[in-house]
Amino acid sequence: MKIISTKDSLSYGIQVCQRVVSSKNPLPVLSGILLKAGDGTLTVTATDLEVGIECTLPMDIQEKGAVVLPARILGDIVRKLPDVKIVMEVNSQNFNTTIKYGQSEFNLLGLSSEDFPILPSIDFSSVLTIKQELFKNMIKQVIFAASSDDNRPIFTGALMEIGEDTVKLVATDTHRLALRTAKMENNGFELEKSVIIPGKTLNELNRIMTGEGEDVKIAFGENQIVFELPGTKLISRLIEGQFPNYKQVVPQGCKTKIKLKTKELLEATERASLLAKEGSNFVKITITEENMTISSNSPEIGKIEEQLPIEMEGEETQIAFNSKYLIDVLKVIDTEEILVELTGSLSPGIIKPAEGQNYIYVILPIRIV
Amino acid sequence: MKIISTKDSLSYGIQVCQRVVSSKNPLPVLSGILLKAGDGTLTVTATDLEVGIECTLPMDIQEKGAVVLPARILGDIVRKLPDVKIVMEVNSQNFNTTIKYGQSEFNLLGLSSEDFPILPSIDFSSVLTIKQELFKNMIKQVIFAASSDDNRPIFTGALMEIGEDTVKLVATDTHRLALRTAKMENNGFELEKSVIIPGKTLNELNRIMTGEGEDVKIAFGENQIVFELPGTKLISRLIEGQFPNYKQVVPQGCKTKIKLKTKELLEATERASLLAKEGSNFVKITITEENMTISSNSPEIGKIEEQLPIEMEGEETQIAFNSKYLIDVLKVIDTEEILVELTGSLSPGIIKPAEGQNYIYVILPIRIV
Repeated sequence: MKIISTKDSLSYGIQVCQRVVSSKNPLPVLSGILLKAGDGTLTVTATDLEVGIECTLPMDIQEKGAVVLPARILGDIVRKLPDVKIVMEVNSQNFNTTIKYGQSEFNLLGLSSEDFPILPSIDFSSVLTIKQELFKNMIKQVIFAASSDDNRPIFTGALMEIGEDTVKLVATDTHRLALRTAKMENNGFELEKSVIIPGKTLNELNRIMTGEGEDVKIAFGENQIVFELPGTKLISRLIEGQFPNYKQVVPQGCKTKIKLKTKELLEATERASLLAKEGSNFVKITITEENMTISSNSPEIGKIEEQLPIEMEGEETQIAFNSKYLIDVLKVIDTEEILVELTGSLSPGIIKPAEGQNYIYVILPIRIV
Repeated sequence: MKIISTKDSLSYGIQVCQRVVSSKNPLPVLSGILLKAGDGTLTVTATDLEVGIECTLPMDIQEKGAVVLPARILGDIVRKLPDVKIVMEVNSQNFNTTIKYGQSEFNLLGLSSEDFPILPSIDFSSVLTIKQELFKNMIKQVIFAASSDDNRPIFTGALMEIGEDTVKLVATDTHRLALRTAKMENNGFELEKSVIIPGKTLNELNRIMTGEGEDVKIAFGENQIVFELPGTKLISRLIEGQFPNYKQVVPQGCKTKIKLKTKELLEATERASLLAKEGSNFVKITITEENMTISSNSPEIGKIEEQLPIEMEGEETQIAFNSKYLIDVLKVIDTEEILVELTGSLSPGIIKPAEGQNYIYVILPIRIV
């Protein structure tokens, strides 16, 4: 194998793939990246057996072939190469790889590509097509609500529900739930389908989606999902099991309805949370006809009381929330104003954008008495 | 005590002082910041008993007084305040402090200022005056060579030597030594003086010096040093003991003299160090009449060999250095070209800017045979 590349091209391909390589993997071949030189393209592949990324780059191929190189050191060195012509040559007998740039060169001991796992091939006959920008936003608004506790795998992923003319993304850690709906007429997909996608997969996808006007194409295999971007494919296993019925969790109706500025509530909650952190980590919210008061206190340090102007309908009420759960959602809502819907201090609250009905966040209160 | 402030003014004063507050301090009053409202000024003071910072701000003082407030939480909240008028009022009986902004307020339990240590007052009759920009550069070029090992306190500081018409700053961790000299005619200081300043002090000073055309004034007390900037004073203890005789460490003359581009050597060494890190952490340098070769290898991963064009006088030679020690100095030399002076593979090497004789870096070789 012999290729001639620019620094940026090689560096880009390795950088896209490198992050999925697990440093803890016991199989040496999996701590490597597969480079495969074919007809005018170099394919760079990495996988940790749960998520795999494959990046195809146009390349000047002098001699076809393949090699597996250690991911971390390859990435580190290639990122620091000077911006000159780079020639990579692999000894087809022992896989020793030489990378030449200017008067200098480095050599890496490579491995045969034979032992590198083959990413499953997936049927692209039925494909869901979404604008990257939209899907990025959906992931951003939902994935933070997933759990990081691997003991309950279902909650570490997000449910994707493809309906006749909608695509929904839902995540919950059982304390709060985020649900994003996108209208999708003619999404190109013929079936209704429900899958649970690992949080790690969606985070990696978000990282490699550039968003600018391009589509992401989504297809499914046996317990697998693949996301196809121009030049890059991300394949992931799905999480098996039954996602909780989120429709039951979303309260219908409310007794108190408030409208206020997203940024004002975010900043007030952030300040209040600084004191909350020292104590039991909750902020107390009191709604009167005049305003909303957000307060927290720490007996040893002091207390804080923030007042915000609101538009309000219904009953005056009080409720307490984990301040982190409140801050998380206020950071991902894009509209200037939000609606907060409450039904007493023991029922879940709802937060959603003041305009559009495409996002809803349910948050369980903390009992403080 | 009662003051009216802008957010930026209060936030600036607290932020300048806050970093010296040690979170591990067993005395509660030392985890606080002293605020003292006097005639038209607020003085903010923090100290860990080794370093103290005092920042004086013009302020609308409604009522004089003083209070000690918990440093971290005060800093965190004030930084997040909205950009409105801020009113701080202290109850002179129990030191409870209320900070009002818009419709909101927070309360902190304060402490009496009586237990707060008084920073030593220092005689400003003999003062050394240096441009901040120059002194910042001197610190940057020297302090990284100090040791972080508290068991040998002398090496954790930098020697400042004030001569008739020079000021020198020297630091060494016994593996390498950095020496910066500044010509200082009429520096305003009448005595010759040698002191060892803690590395932490110089790092804090570097952080608060803005550099833009202003001076820093330096004065000395009994085992104390004070740096005065407009509006801010930094007082520090000195390190007691005998600094090694750096003049003996700097080799006189050399057998091989090389001139090359600073940036080229830095980038080549950074690449080589990536492989060196996996092994014994050194890079090997080979000088021939044609060029310099920098190489390193890791038996399990591979090897790297960089070639750089040089101008060379004297003998061909080989030497090995800890790659970190080489990278550190190449990052702080501002000139386009450097001189490297060597005398065989067992004697210390010298690195210095190709122009100007105000900086010299001595680095011990690693025996590799």
